[in-house]
Amino acid sequence: MIIGTVRGDIVSTIQHPFYNGRRMLVVEKENFEGKPSGYIIAIDGGVGAGVGDRVLIVDEGTGARQIIGDPKVPLRSIIVGVIDHIETGA
Amino acid sequence: MIIGTVRGDIVSTIQHPFYNGRRMLVVEKENFEGKPSGYIIAIDGGVGAGVGDRVLIVDEGTGARQIIGDPKVPLRSIIVGVIDHIETGA
Amino acid sequence: MIIGTVRGDIVSTIQHPFYNGRRMLVVEKENFEGKPSGYIIAIDGGVGAGVGDRVLIVDEGTGARQIIGDPKVPLRSIIVGVIDHIETGA
Amino acid sequence: MIIGTVRGDIVSTIQHPFYNGRRMLVVEKENFEGKPSGYIIAIDGGVGAGVGDRVLIVDEGTGARQIIGDPKVPLRSIIVGVIDHIETGA
Amino acid sequence: MIIGTVRGDIVSTIQHPFYNGRRMLVVEKENFEGKPSGYIIAIDGGVGAGVGDRVLIVDEGTGARQIIGDPKVPLRSIIVGVIDHIETGA
Repeated sequence: MIIGTVRGDIVSTIQHPFYNGRRMLVVEKENFEGKPSGYIIAIDGGVGAGVGDRVLIVDEGTGARQIIGDPKVPLRSIIVGVIDHIETGA
Repeated sequence: MIIGTVRGDIVSTIQHPFYNGRRMLVVEKENFEGKPSGYIIAIDGGVGAGVGDRVLIVDEGTGARQIIGDPKVPLRSIIVGVIDHIETGA
Repeated sequence: MIIGTVRGDIVSTIQHPFYNGRRMLVVEKENFEGKPSGYIIAIDGGVGAGVGDRVLIVDEGTGARQIIGDPKVPLRSIIVGVIDHIETGA
Repeated sequence: MIIGTVRGDIVSTIQHPFYNGRRMLVVEKENFEGKPSGYIIAIDGGVGAGVGDRVLIVDEGTGARQIIGDPKVPLRSIIVGVIDHIETGA
Repeated sequence: MIIGTVRGDIVSTIQHPFYNGRRMLVVEKENFEGKPSGYIIAIDGGVGAGVGDRVLIVDEGTGARQIIGDPKVPLRSIIVGVIDHIETGA
């Protein structure tokens, strides 16, 4: 799983019916030091993520479809949590 | 899922029968700042994408096959939407 | 499979129910020379990994779900071993 | 899917039985400008690709196994077409 | 599929039961010119690979599990062949 910060929404009028009414979020991934490292487009898996939230993403189709509850969905990346903070050290 | 811009069509006379009559599009991926970042070959998943369109791609075989409606297709990347714009900010 | 060192825990109050009560660990991956090379978020697959442990990770959804024993879990990365050392040379 | 050019054959006397009698091709991947960008080992999916051919590759296990017609094959990358040329421009 | 050279064994006393009694090999991947390019941890798929051997690896969970003969194994990378040499040129 990977971490990133929500930066925006994708607006798309022509698309596969599955995506109608679903928010497609642009998430900027971060590296170990918390710096930007590319992006990924993900759907909110029911956690209500908004712009600025630091989120946990599962980037794997089968797992993503389990959350949606439909095994026939064209999907790969889904937000499964909003991160409060990371605790480090022994 | 990832974002990119359609740049062209692949013309291939010798190929697996599944690809006969299907458009294989060359899509230039973009990074978070919208700059080019490699490419991917994808099939149009019924959204009518053309050269110059900014598109949303699902790069995962099972999801791609669901759109085609055939679980036996050798396929990984499919275009599922044409992007109008991206809304950012809180 | 990949190798890394556990650096911390993710604390997340809003998340998919599957993750309730499970430790999500931040693992810093390492390259062939043992130097840091990005990170991955993984769940402990029953080996009791803690901060500072060098671990073996399977980064593949189906395999990860087998360990959890639930085929419907949104999951991709799981820790399957704690590494003592690596033996090299012929 | 990705594009590359066939550069050679792998000769291997000790291998999994599935690979007996099959050609394993070394394919040099190319980036958007057509320049070399790493490599991949792929099996010919029935298109008769040879050294110097520019090919289309599906890098996904389930799709690759569909072409071989055997769901139990240890396989990930397969050549599904020989590319004539790429048409660009609007 | 990818190519690399076996560099060592991982010794791990705490691990998922599946890995008991199995050799986990550290394989240094190589790029198209044969130079080092990162590493991967793989299990020997019955070809008897040892340190110094140049090997062919399938990095895909379902294919790897087929070789082991157990669909419930947490596994992604497996060595399927020992490479003698690569033949290039038309």
